[in-house]
Amino acid sequence: MGEFELIDRFFRRPVRRQPLGIGDDCALLAPAPGMQLAVSSDLLVEGRHFLSTVDPARLGHKCLAVNLSDLGACGARPVAFTLALSLPQADAAWLAPFANGLLALADEHGCELVGGDTTRGPLTVCITVFGDVPAGQALLRSSARPGDEVWVSGHLGDARAALEVFRGRLSLPTPAFEKARARLEQPTPRVALGQALRGTATAAIDVSDGLAGDLGHILRQSGVGACLSQPALPPLMAISDALATDPALACVLHGGDDYELAFTAPAERHQAVIRAAARSRTPVHCIGRIEAEPGLRLRDAQGHITSVRDAGFDHFA
Amino acid sequence: MGEFELIDRFFRRPVRRQPLGIGDDCALLAPAPGMQLAVSSDLLVEGRHFLSTVDPARLGHKCLAVNLSDLGACGARPVAFTLALSLPQADAAWLAPFANGLLALADEHGCELVGGDTTRGPLTVCITVFGDVPAGQALLRSSARPGDEVWVSGHLGDARAALEVFRGRLSLPTPAFEKARARLEQPTPRVALGQALRGTATAAIDVSDGLAGDLGHILRQSGVGACLSQPALPPLMAISDALATDPALACVLHGGDDYELAFTAPAERHQAVIRAAARSRTPVHCIGRIEAEPGLRLRDAQGHITSVRDAGFDHFA
Repeated sequence: MGEFELIDRFFRRPVRRQPLGIGDDCALLAPAPGMQLAVSSDLLVEGRHFLSTVDPARLGHKCLAVNLSDLGACGARPVAFTLALSLPQADAAWLAPFANGLLALADEHGCELVGGDTTRGPLTVCITVFGDVPAGQALLRSSARPGDEVWVSGHLGDARAALEVFRGRLSLPTPAFEKARARLEQPTPRVALGQALRGTATAAIDVSDGLAGDLGHILRQSGVGACLSQPALPPLMAISDALATDPALACVLHGGDDYELAFTAPAERHQAVIRAAARSRTPVHCIGRIEAEPGLRLRDAQGHITSVRDAGFDHFA
Repeated sequence: MGEFELIDRFFRRPVRRQPLGIGDDCALLAPAPGMQLAVSSDLLVEGRHFLSTVDPARLGHKCLAVNLSDLGACGARPVAFTLALSLPQADAAWLAPFANGLLALADEHGCELVGGDTTRGPLTVCITVFGDVPAGQALLRSSARPGDEVWVSGHLGDARAALEVFRGRLSLPTPAFEKARARLEQPTPRVALGQALRGTATAAIDVSDGLAGDLGHILRQSGVGACLSQPALPPLMAISDALATDPALACVLHGGDDYELAFTAPAERHQAVIRAAARSRTPVHCIGRIEAEPGLRLRDAQGHITSVRDAGFDHFA
């Protein structure tokens, strides 16, 4: 199977909403008047971002999901994506489920594959995703204000717990492990929530390197700090019943690979956040407050405050 | 050196013309009214697209050049790009010249680095480039017509000759090798020519997999054929004096890595093509004609016509 047959067989489909898709030197996108184009790239490398044994359908889903998650964190609506794929060989038994997983999620979000590149090499997937957002309405990292409430969507820490099981450092009952593993391998990008939060949230980020590290980006870029409620955190984990409090707290704060949204909103918009969450059918949790004093802090049930290192996952640390 | 220090130290610069650059979940691009956005991705893998011994500054140049070349082939003006970089380690002695080579070419074309991703892994560079083009004016592959003249820019075949020297299959005098090697390692994207050809060329493609293969895409997508003049071809090679006619012809037709434009234009626009070339200070050569009969043919000095296989370089063949 050659390069062009590979593209035709697994990835080419009629492009419906863009002026030009796969098969020319460039794809052409035509943003509507008044819209800005939100752009994000993620590179996933075998052995670093996924295990060689991962189900290719789940991998296809995840490669696009992590990019859609960035659109969600900007409040952008998915429009299109490009796929650059390096493969050790052109293996139909791998490519068919990979393409199915990828394109099923793309269809769910109305996001069209418009171009890319294929080559032989170590298994590597680079997706660049495009979304549109009305000019001036994108959710940024730099606009959290003291007094804002801190929120997160969905569940945090489960993906890291699954990774620790794969690494042999943690054991979990099978049902909890399968639940956590699905979160690691098939994250749900919070695209609808991001759009629903436009005009309500002051700042947003997607949690890919751990809550403390990613919230830390909002804090530094906004020139503020935050205090989180410790009792609110371990219950954020879907599988927290299967774990003691300590590892659960560590997984929630420093886990990574969650692809939930962490965001801030003024306290007086508390009900507006609840309504945005309901509209987008996404659970959200209020976990703390933005403060003027820099740094990230944790207040325990007794009111004692401790400082949290805000280091997230760093590929070169 | 951590991931964020790496980005800050080598790649982050103030973004001047886009609403938002590096450092948020997405970059934001704001195409002007009436403009379409041209998008192209290329993935370059060590050992496949470049040798591990290549000068990092030349590699930085080339990774962006091959993407700008796609914009040129669409007639688009460069606007911005994202960089996804997988590196075995964060090595300042490699990153500094790589970033310099990359950003020098970016500055030359007014193309801003707005975002991307960095991770540890096999040396892999994925760039997605964005250009703008007035709606309806992009140069496509599908609109060549019988009677059109076939043109190419600059020189063809030198890059392949250099590769064959590296592979030990060809020998060249040192000055010819250095000239050919510079073409392989630092190609010149024909961005100004592409824009100058809007409204004049009927179809265009950039020559990355070899003239026969890439022109073949225009022929198939336009439902036409072409006949090229054999005596016109070997002189297209900058170093043809250093080679016998046979390898020169093979390098020109099937070489690859040229990043010149192959394009078609009606014969009555011959002078308009010459003017577009002069305006963009790019040499162009008329090498044949589009014909109704499918396939690619070569007419020798005696008028004998032979068929040319149009297979270009295929990463999985």
